[in-house]
Amino acid sequence: MRRLVMTFAYDGSGFAGLQRQQNADRTVQAVLEDTLRHLLHENVILHASGRTDSGVHALRQVAHFDIQAPIPVERLTYALSRSLPPDIAVYDMQEAAPDFHARKSAIAKAYAYYIYNGRPAPAIGHQYFTYEPMPVDRLLFTESFAPMLGYHDFRGFCGRGSSIDSYDRKLYIARVVSEDDWIAVLLIGNGFLRKMVRNLVGSALDIATGRKPTDIIERALASGDRRQAGTTAPANGLYLDTVYYDPTHLARDLHRASEAPLSARPPVACF
Amino acid sequence: MRRLVMTFAYDGSGFAGLQRQQNADRTVQAVLEDTLRHLLHENVILHASGRTDSGVHALRQVAHFDIQAPIPVERLTYALSRSLPPDIAVYDMQEAAPDFHARKSAIAKAYAYYIYNGRPAPAIGHQYFTYEPMPVDRLLFTESFAPMLGYHDFRGFCGRGSSIDSYDRKLYIARVVSEDDWIAVLLIGNGFLRKMVRNLVGSALDIATGRKPTDIIERALASGDRRQAGTTAPANGLYLDTVYYDPTHLARDLHRASEAPLSARPPVACF
Repeated sequence: MRRLVMTFAYDGSGFAGLQRQQNADRTVQAVLEDTLRHLLHENVILHASGRTDSGVHALRQVAHFDIQAPIPVERLTYALSRSLPPDIAVYDMQEAAPDFHARKSAIAKAYAYYIYNGRPAPAIGHQYFTYEPMPVDRLLFTESFAPMLGYHDFRGFCGRGSSIDSYDRKLYIARVVSEDDWIAVLLIGNGFLRKMVRNLVGSALDIATGRKPTDIIERALASGDRRQAGTTAPANGLYLDTVYYDPTHLARDLHRASEAPLSARPPVACF
Repeated sequence: MRRLVMTFAYDGSGFAGLQRQQNADRTVQAVLEDTLRHLLHENVILHASGRTDSGVHALRQVAHFDIQAPIPVERLTYALSRSLPPDIAVYDMQEAAPDFHARKSAIAKAYAYYIYNGRPAPAIGHQYFTYEPMPVDRLLFTESFAPMLGYHDFRGFCGRGSSIDSYDRKLYIARVVSEDDWIAVLLIGNGFLRKMVRNLVGSALDIATGRKPTDIIERALASGDRRQAGTTAPANGLYLDTVYYDPTHLARDLHRASEAPLSARPPVACF
């Protein structure tokens, strides 16, 4: 038995999320597992770093899986690339240590969220960003992320249906950039709860457009009450950017995130 | 009766082309006419500058239509923008002269075509460019457009089902730019036949990848035989860029097209 780890991108618009469903919905996991089974003539179970909801995109999702076949990874990568539909792309595949686990070994994740705040919204590529028609106060939006930084119990920003032991997460960085009518947020944390990014961004948008008072984030953090926070921002604008396994990689990106130029426009057709 | 002219963009991926169909297919014309009828309580017939096929995008399509309602154009633009689905965006609406005709008054058109020539293809936004997996000789690709320039009978590059008087068209400019794994072509001509841009680009790709001999374009132009030309490039990569009515505007863009920087990446979520 060999354990392989791969990095892949997908366009969330054509999928009912990452995780295989009981029904016939098209999911990233189902397409990848079915394609791998077809190529390898053995059943493959994909273990991703985490789920993404319907409509959420991934630039560098990571998953591991075990196979029996002695096929070289380069050949499997090539065969898989040729067999996958155009909305999934495999960038890298490697042999992994037997104890590597795409979810359990992950030490941090980066998510990016893209908002268009002009008028009218661009018609081409509307599934790759969120359209906010009300004027966003950029300073207020940026400031809204400040109380979230560091260790917190984020249950006030956790979506329903989550069964976990702890709601404690550490948010390392929340960097907001804006350019013309575009606004982007990059969030790096040691882990994210269900719909947490969308609830954080939605709350910040509610504050920055004046739909909600400026203290809703502090109140939701303090009370742990989901109803105190703002609305859930749409899935369209959300991208799983990077999954971290290596502290050096994380340290470098945390450093970069505060210094390097970050585009305020969504990475459509660009990666 | 008032004649209005409007400029609008659409994402071709969700439409069975521009023109209203007998069947229930979703088309740009049907969506716009139905939305206008709903807003104005009168039947509206949209006359676009020309059709675009299923999957073809438009950045600045132009159409005229006649209405009875005395509603100010600003209010109609606003109401229309709010009522349209996210894959159509109205940019401008004006009162037009009674003899203005979006198709007949047009003096030229610009189309852009975007190709990705790396590996693997980007998964996010795959419906906004054409993926060419075989290596494209950029010089050969650029040179392939040279014989098309100027006045020609383009029937060798005309799609079936076209009923027109003349196949004579003048191609003013064919500018190719490339950057990293991206290749873009901007074509400006006094008019384009059915599938003409896709047949020209497909033939140039056939030549530049070595799939067809280098003289197929000359031969198809000389013989008028569609079978002498190359394959039809996919609709995904094609964008109707601009429709010209004003010679000064055309002259300025012809000048610009040969000088100004042109992006090799598709204008997704950027306009």
